[in-house]
Amino acid sequence: MALLTDLYQVTMAYGYWRAGRHRVPAAAELFFRRCPFRGAFALGAGLAEGLRFLRAFRFSAADIAYLRSVLPSTTEEDFFEYLATVDASEVTISSVPEGSVVFSRVPLLQVKGPLLVVQLLETTLLCLVSYASLVATNAARFRLLAGPATKLMEMGLRRAQGPDGGLSASKYSYIGGFDCTSNVLAGKLYGIPVQGTVAHSFIMSFTSLAEVEPRVLTPLAGGEPVDLPSLAESWLPQVCELLQVSPDKVNRGELAAFVSYAISFPRNFQGLLDTYCVMRSGLPNFCAVALALNQLGYRAIGVRVDSGDLAKQSKEIRRVFRACGSRFQVPWFETISIAVSNDISEESLEDFIRERSEINVIGIGTNLVTCPLQPSLGCIYKLVKVNGFPCLKLTEDEEKMTIPGTKTVYRLYDADGHPFMDLMALEEEPAPSAGQELTVHVLGRSGEASKVTPATVETLHRTYFRDGQVCEELPSLPEVRSYAQAALGQLSPAHRRLHEPEPYPVAITEKLHLLFGELRQASL
Amino acid sequence: MALLTDLYQVTMAYGYWRAGRHRVPAAAELFFRRCPFRGAFALGAGLAEGLRFLRAFRFSAADIAYLRSVLPSTTEEDFFEYLATVDASEVTISSVPEGSVVFSRVPLLQVKGPLLVVQLLETTLLCLVSYASLVATNAARFRLLAGPATKLMEMGLRRAQGPDGGLSASKYSYIGGFDCTSNVLAGKLYGIPVQGTVAHSFIMSFTSLAEVEPRVLTPLAGGEPVDLPSLAESWLPQVCELLQVSPDKVNRGELAAFVSYAISFPRNFQGLLDTYCVMRSGLPNFCAVALALNQLGYRAIGVRVDSGDLAKQSKEIRRVFRACGSRFQVPWFETISIAVSNDISEESLEDFIRERSEINVIGIGTNLVTCPLQPSLGCIYKLVKVNGFPCLKLTEDEEKMTIPGTKTVYRLYDADGHPFMDLMALEEEPAPSAGQELTVHVLGRSGEASKVTPATVETLHRTYFRDGQVCEELPSLPEVRSYAQAALGQLSPAHRRLHEPEPYPVAITEKLHLLFGELRQASL
Repeated sequence: MALLTDLYQVTMAYGYWRAGRHRVPAAAELFFRRCPFRGAFALGAGLAEGLRFLRAFRFSAADIAYLRSVLPSTTEEDFFEYLATVDASEVTISSVPEGSVVFSRVPLLQVKGPLLVVQLLETTLLCLVSYASLVATNAARFRLLAGPATKLMEMGLRRAQGPDGGLSASKYSYIGGFDCTSNVLAGKLYGIPVQGTVAHSFIMSFTSLAEVEPRVLTPLAGGEPVDLPSLAESWLPQVCELLQVSPDKVNRGELAAFVSYAISFPRNFQGLLDTYCVMRSGLPNFCAVALALNQLGYRAIGVRVDSGDLAKQSKEIRRVFRACGSRFQVPWFETISIAVSNDISEESLEDFIRERSEINVIGIGTNLVTCPLQPSLGCIYKLVKVNGFPCLKLTEDEEKMTIPGTKTVYRLYDADGHPFMDLMALEEEPAPSAGQELTVHVLGRSGEASKVTPATVETLHRTYFRDGQVCEELPSLPEVRSYAQAALGQLSPAHRRLHEPEPYPVAITEKLHLLFGELRQASL
Repeated sequence: MALLTDLYQVTMAYGYWRAGRHRVPAAAELFFRRCPFRGAFALGAGLAEGLRFLRAFRFSAADIAYLRSVLPSTTEEDFFEYLATVDASEVTISSVPEGSVVFSRVPLLQVKGPLLVVQLLETTLLCLVSYASLVATNAARFRLLAGPATKLMEMGLRRAQGPDGGLSASKYSYIGGFDCTSNVLAGKLYGIPVQGTVAHSFIMSFTSLAEVEPRVLTPLAGGEPVDLPSLAESWLPQVCELLQVSPDKVNRGELAAFVSYAISFPRNFQGLLDTYCVMRSGLPNFCAVALALNQLGYRAIGVRVDSGDLAKQSKEIRRVFRACGSRFQVPWFETISIAVSNDISEESLEDFIRERSEINVIGIGTNLVTCPLQPSLGCIYKLVKVNGFPCLKLTEDEEKMTIPGTKTVYRLYDADGHPFMDLMALEEEPAPSAGQELTVHVLGRSGEASKVTPATVETLHRTYFRDGQVCEELPSLPEVRSYAQAALGQLSPAHRRLHEPEPYPVAITEKLHLLFGELRQASL
């Protein structure tokens, strides 16, 4: 895994080693410059995987042999011997807890250690944190839109960047607030609840009721097995009459598929309604099978629609469920779960709310895992201190400047318990106190200082890795998920809203501001 | 790896098994509905990984135990015993060769075998083929824009969906026409050329020439080692005079970094110019070091700029290189390679061309690997035949219909050697002959038949997997890359162009058209 990096990290490592600077103490920060999706927040994620990488960080003999083949032939052999001894045992990592709400320019991770190692970790840490945080944030946005009651299911495996991309998507969508995934391997590896029923191909594989085998189902309470195809068929004319559709238009292959599925999973019967036509075929077939099951004591659990106007169809389906429930005296029919899928985006969810849809479960794939509104978080990793000297990168692009020095970051809360500002201070500065006025310089608002008085002050980072060991207990995945939801709940609605949110202020202390100014002057 | 699928594939497998239909012969096709990025073509990729997956396809005891824990408790134990025996030994895969130019609705892969297995392969094959084809196509578009002379480097690891996403991006960008990657692990695993030099952090880690250690470099031809910092510093005033910049504004830390790098890699010296200011610091420092190296017999190989107006800067840099080459009589200075990076997109490349830039190497990350113009190819996998009967999915969305039956696909070429149409025929139909007129129905042009006469006819698919074995020799990665470039070269410019291309016609035979119509009637 140590080779999962950009070649220039290794050429630079040689540069440092050759100059005898490889063991110089250095510090780097990992952060992003702008919150994704035009929002005002992100969720920080990827820490646990980053720590796993650090623990195992080491170049194998095969890695070294490969590096020898790609570095210039003038590279000294001693370097490769040194590289074989390098690990992360002298690296210290502090980080926001996984699932934290984070803001632009505030470090997610702080890395300290010998310059060569700090440099070598750059690309891999970026790779592990960037997409994790991006997709967790995307998931959190869907959760904020959907509200707490609607069930959200991640189903993006086929749209992800290969198998591992799919697994990351499942894991970090769960952290961001999804309820379950369709990805079985993610379920096995991470313990995420998995769900999923049936696809069009199953429906299409049947052409007539004659194909249903076995045909009988034993009632829930026991007793004589009943021929389910006949029983379902006997319900069809009544259902069709109620729905005012022609029984001739109802697809018999679809009915066969539903019956067959119901016999296999009598307690978990679900229907996919849109293989042919939802209102003229899928829905009457589903109701006929569900009513037949009901006679045997079983309750159908849901339907899914995967095309067309989903909000409108959900309301029509609910109307039919109510009508069936009332006409055939099956009260639970009213509450059958309605699931939808098919290229669901944030706009789709907004539309569902506007239309007062009757949707209970939403399956999201492409627009969750590929984050099309912004497919990369653009995290960066910058040296902030080398050999005791704070570093400043001063470029043509104002936004690309770094804030020098190793820092402690404080989150300031107001009296209502909402965070209202993140404050970066130099490590050596005393911590701000609750209730005391502070002079700060908000980033992006050039010029004057402002005064703030926090009701509560929280130190944002914890030390997670030291002496080659993870030194802080890592929470379970469900704990991370709860932590993220709680943190989002604390955020004030003005910062949390998805469209045109109020930017969350990130500030630096007077002292850091002075240092920044001095270094800027010096390098001009 | 068999668990890397959606849960509903497994629940459907149980449905098939419970109904005794698991061994019914079935055929499925993998295709996409629309070419990505509003283009008229895509590159098909992912075949080799798909075949590797098939060869290993099997549920382990741990997989089965996990499935038992997530399927409904009513699932029969015999099913799990059966599942433990399932592999891909009865599956036959035919496919377009990896790196082929492909069009919408034409199957990339055709899968035949027992219904249960064909179903179980769906999600994983989609996962392995979709992103591979998408990013290869994206890379091919960049290559078409850049022309053959400009070197294209993939550097998207930090922006990909985790480590595996990064590796896929490197591999399939290379297939699509990139020259190299920065991802060292991709180099080791796939043999792709790796490149990369230095990042801002290296430059920022130096503050003065006093830090340069060791200081001496032996001339290429041998002889007394020379103090390179002093030599470079002695060039600086002359360079600054030529460039009309103040020697005081030149950052000494940057000069130290360049000198240190040059001592480490005297035959591979490259400068990253924009840590401070390209024209007032980076470029004079680079020229001073390159001129010092030249005195010792070494040639600098390149510079890179990572911010600002890249086309404009490339021209200014080239002008300076020409001026230096002429003033100091170093002719090779004129041809020093200029590399750029920083959020490069298709528009950037168009801009470089319009501006007649002097750029030689382009590094592309985010916009290559995340494919922001369309982050998912949207491949689908549909049953086309079950138990001898062709399948048709007829939904509310016209575009979501499938074309029934197992097919042979022919590519028809005109007399100039350009492909002009892909033709799907039923497997049992005789192959069309070169020079003979054919009656075809072009998809998307409803109604009448048209007549075409191909100069050459090519059968598109080959059988790659049969009896559990890969049965066709797989080309090496460079061979796949060449194949793709040749195929793109054959494509007529009207279909190849990136903006508003002429759609490439995909047609079905008269016989397939009739079958389609009959099934459509029958299911209405």
